[in-house]
Amino acid sequence: MTEHLNRRDIDFMLHEWLDVTSLTSRPRFAEHSRDTFDAVLDLSEDMATRLFAPHYKSADQTEPYIGDDGEVVLLPEIGRALSAFGEAGLLAGTFDEGLGGMQLPNTVARASMAFFQAENAPTTSYAFLTVGNANLLTTYGTPEQIDTWVRPMLEGRYFGTMCLSEPQAGSSLADITTKAVPADDGTYRVTGTKMWISGGDHELTENIVHLVLAKAPGGGPGVKGISLFVVPKVLPDGTRNDVALVGLNHKMGNRGTTNTLLNFGDGTYAAEGAPAGAVGYLVGEEHQGLKYMFNMMNEARIGVGFLATALGHAGYRTSLEYAKVRTQGRPVDDKNPESAPIPIIEHPDVTRMLLAQKSYVEGALALLLYCSSLLDEETTGPPEARDRTHLLLEVLTPIAKSWPSQWCLEANSLAIQVHGGYGYTTEFDVEQNYRDNRLNPIHEGAHGIHGLDLLGRKVIMHDGEGLGVLVEAIGETITKGREAGDEAAEHAEALAEAVGRLGQVTAAVWAPGDPKLALANATAYLEAAGHIVVAWMWLEQVLAADAAASPEADFYQGKRAAARYFYSYELPKTAVQFDLLESLDRTTMDTDPNWL
Amino acid sequence: MTEHLNRRDIDFMLHEWLDVTSLTSRPRFAEHSRDTFDAVLDLSEDMATRLFAPHYKSADQTEPYIGDDGEVVLLPEIGRALSAFGEAGLLAGTFDEGLGGMQLPNTVARASMAFFQAENAPTTSYAFLTVGNANLLTTYGTPEQIDTWVRPMLEGRYFGTMCLSEPQAGSSLADITTKAVPADDGTYRVTGTKMWISGGDHELTENIVHLVLAKAPGGGPGVKGISLFVVPKVLPDGTRNDVALVGLNHKMGNRGTTNTLLNFGDGTYAAEGAPAGAVGYLVGEEHQGLKYMFNMMNEARIGVGFLATALGHAGYRTSLEYAKVRTQGRPVDDKNPESAPIPIIEHPDVTRMLLAQKSYVEGALALLLYCSSLLDEETTGPPEARDRTHLLLEVLTPIAKSWPSQWCLEANSLAIQVHGGYGYTTEFDVEQNYRDNRLNPIHEGAHGIHGLDLLGRKVIMHDGEGLGVLVEAIGETITKGREAGDEAAEHAEALAEAVGRLGQVTAAVWAPGDPKLALANATAYLEAAGHIVVAWMWLEQVLAADAAASPEADFYQGKRAAARYFYSYELPKTAVQFDLLESLDRTTMDTDPNWL
Repeated sequence: MTEHLNRRDIDFMLHEWLDVTSLTSRPRFAEHSRDTFDAVLDLSEDMATRLFAPHYKSADQTEPYIGDDGEVVLLPEIGRALSAFGEAGLLAGTFDEGLGGMQLPNTVARASMAFFQAENAPTTSYAFLTVGNANLLTTYGTPEQIDTWVRPMLEGRYFGTMCLSEPQAGSSLADITTKAVPADDGTYRVTGTKMWISGGDHELTENIVHLVLAKAPGGGPGVKGISLFVVPKVLPDGTRNDVALVGLNHKMGNRGTTNTLLNFGDGTYAAEGAPAGAVGYLVGEEHQGLKYMFNMMNEARIGVGFLATALGHAGYRTSLEYAKVRTQGRPVDDKNPESAPIPIIEHPDVTRMLLAQKSYVEGALALLLYCSSLLDEETTGPPEARDRTHLLLEVLTPIAKSWPSQWCLEANSLAIQVHGGYGYTTEFDVEQNYRDNRLNPIHEGAHGIHGLDLLGRKVIMHDGEGLGVLVEAIGETITKGREAGDEAAEHAEALAEAVGRLGQVTAAVWAPGDPKLALANATAYLEAAGHIVVAWMWLEQVLAADAAASPEADFYQGKRAAARYFYSYELPKTAVQFDLLESLDRTTMDTDPNWL
Repeated sequence: MTEHLNRRDIDFMLHEWLDVTSLTSRPRFAEHSRDTFDAVLDLSEDMATRLFAPHYKSADQTEPYIGDDGEVVLLPEIGRALSAFGEAGLLAGTFDEGLGGMQLPNTVARASMAFFQAENAPTTSYAFLTVGNANLLTTYGTPEQIDTWVRPMLEGRYFGTMCLSEPQAGSSLADITTKAVPADDGTYRVTGTKMWISGGDHELTENIVHLVLAKAPGGGPGVKGISLFVVPKVLPDGTRNDVALVGLNHKMGNRGTTNTLLNFGDGTYAAEGAPAGAVGYLVGEEHQGLKYMFNMMNEARIGVGFLATALGHAGYRTSLEYAKVRTQGRPVDDKNPESAPIPIIEHPDVTRMLLAQKSYVEGALALLLYCSSLLDEETTGPPEARDRTHLLLEVLTPIAKSWPSQWCLEANSLAIQVHGGYGYTTEFDVEQNYRDNRLNPIHEGAHGIHGLDLLGRKVIMHDGEGLGVLVEAIGETITKGREAGDEAAEHAEALAEAVGRLGQVTAAVWAPGDPKLALANATAYLEAAGHIVVAWMWLEQVLAADAAASPEADFYQGKRAAARYFYSYELPKTAVQFDLLESLDRTTMDTDPNWL
């Protein structure tokens, strides 16, 4: 079986590029070493291929269903895999030792998670959501809440969810209608309907910890009125809370992860005589809920980027192996029909499809590990640099979510194409990778939302300092590239030109002072900025490859070839997007809906 | 229910643009009139929505399977729909009256078929393959073969297939190993395995007429040795021919169409004492099989373009309706959370996704109807223009197949995106449109094959006359656009520039005289040429809209808006592809497989 994430590449990025072992000089990571990092990755690689990979397809073909007793029935292999994951301590990878955690750097923990995502993204999502939930509660919850909810989550006895969307309110959280009313005992009663809740019901764990956005009285209209609550499936006294599964969504992919419609406080599980509503426990202060949730959402957005990237890797590695063994046709300059057919990897158009995949999936992985390293810097790095690091991470987050979701999906399409007709069948996993990955441009903020976030908020933050930190960070790499000479210097020049235009275009779209006009083509801006950031990541990788002990080895040549592909075939696309943005094109704004 | 193909648009293209009624002045179509054309389209629209649309989803969810007696079990609705289709005479739409046909122009018949493809592509494919098969046999078969096989197909009593690929030979037909040996009675005995045979087995009809490529003795190696045979499932004497269903392929989409692995002559149905092999009847002459099959393949390629386009329309129309009724959020310049949410069609990024879809699916439809009209010109137009028309159709065929397959799939992805999370579920059809459409860049020549065909064969045919006729035809439209002034003139200038580069780049890639280098980026050439051709189709539509009786009506404004979108957002992408081609980029050629 092909391993779907290349350990060699992870080692390159973590050690030859990001030098994560240097983190062990910091107090938080002092107990760690290259050996302990390797041990976590060895374990992850082994568990992922042994326990997660084997049921990837069967969990897709056997959709979760609601059993006779109203319970959600999942393939037993999902539970077994997740139990092992929890027992290995991986849910607590980054958490404090005091909570039973390993105090791993984020960079290492994310790499560990990526092995599981690459082998079986839908099963891994239960764990991924639980970690995000536990992180939020650890940051904003009371010590009692941490003991009650976080500890069992880190032990794998409870799983967590995030409950934001409602049937009428997805992208626009200002319009949620779920209500929370204070009860006499200091708890709240939550009533409303939540939609698209991944892991919203199952029998995998003793309890499910829902983090629910709801409006408590007095917060005013819109997002300001939103508060955050823990609403467990089972109450601390062991009785069932009034959280009812209304239905499971039937999806194109990602089927192993249940996705649910939940009613809070509809009376299904109401205790006799109790006030109406599911019991909820306020997290932090009233009306600050969206701020807290953004903590989890930012983490989840990086996580979705990893998810998309891991699925991209799965398709790339599968199609690479196929292209080496499948023979078909002859070189275009060989007209002898009696010569032997060649492996398809030798056809330039197949090489193109593989190089494109490589440039997308390894470019995306580099970006995501870089973002993870920024999180490590923000929490444990030199205090004077933390604000800047935080700002850079804020600017990169919409890109780290959306770029992999778009281009690693494209990679999956190319993986199908490399397989020809076989790729369209369930004989290979590539069609499932593609279906699973199609979710990622939709959830955790639909693609277009991130364009608005990047161009309408992030780059203009603090009088444009948002864009400033990004340009400055890329500039450091450009300087190194220029100094290195050769191909790195050529890439550096191309990157410098593109970054220059990014700055000009940002100024140009905001110059008229009309937000509607400025943001009319925010998606094009997001996509162009994404290409620039990934080109930056490729220059970083080329520099790391050039610095290797044996820089001519196949592995490093592969890095250079993928970078060359990205700079020849991909980066030039930004010029078209920038031309469009700079022209302040009004086509979409000026189109009357009745014309469509 | 939303109709998936817009009759208003079909009427615009057929009458306001292509003026199909003028064909009725030609002898072959003399019995026809605008009324008879309308009657066929009315019937098609009605039958498609009444009999084909209702089982689109259920046929996806209930995959065909092999029953206890080895028979293929399909949803009964598929059979009922196809019976009605045959009884209405639609299988014989373009055929001679002598064969019971309607002698419809291709343009009208294809438009009729598109209504069915838009409502239920997989069910329609049985009919579509049968028509293609019957066309080939009518052209190259003997009168006896036409009576025996074509007549029952046109009556809907038999269906047809095309059997080209084998497990080891798909793109490279030179490597097929199916053999045909002459028997004493003038028939042949065919042995071998054929893969990916759509409609390869079912109980829908009394018989299935397989058109099989096989190697007869003495033809030499490669494609030269290939001959074409009729190999029926049931022999004229009513006994079963030795054609055995080995298995059904399980696919990501397009599930209503069975896709089979067939063994010819493996003895499963061998008559006692008979020589080994399935009985086959030679079509035309020995060793000319591939030439004949290209007749059907070219028709099938245009047909696949229509299929992709029809699925694109289905997604566009569904997401357009959704965007009008789904409310979410507020304009970016409205910060009042208490104002009412707006229909999402009013958000510029949603408009972008709808305009993009419209520009892809209506641009593709225009191209395909134009190609169909060329076929009418080639067969019934002025004799002196036929060679040129034929050549233009040859050049356009790889584009007409590949461009819709790529961009109408992208349209389907945008249709999902417009629906948000709902688009990822089976509640709407858009996820199925996307899965069904993913087949189209794979079959009837994988995407990359058409790049090789266009750049390596078609444009350089007859000393470059291939490209010449295309440039000349586009040039006529550019001249009209320039004369029209206003926006049409602006589009005409942009198109002229792009066409100019197409010529330069074609010369540049062939200048070094190295086919391998010239073709290394043939896919980029295919895609750039496709964008130019579709831009041409949009200028044609703008000119037709400007000439309308009430050119300011919403419908015509929509045409102009979609054209504007295509010229602002899409056509400029060709500059990047041309730069790459002109640089004779060697990245893919020079990448060692071991680096990947």
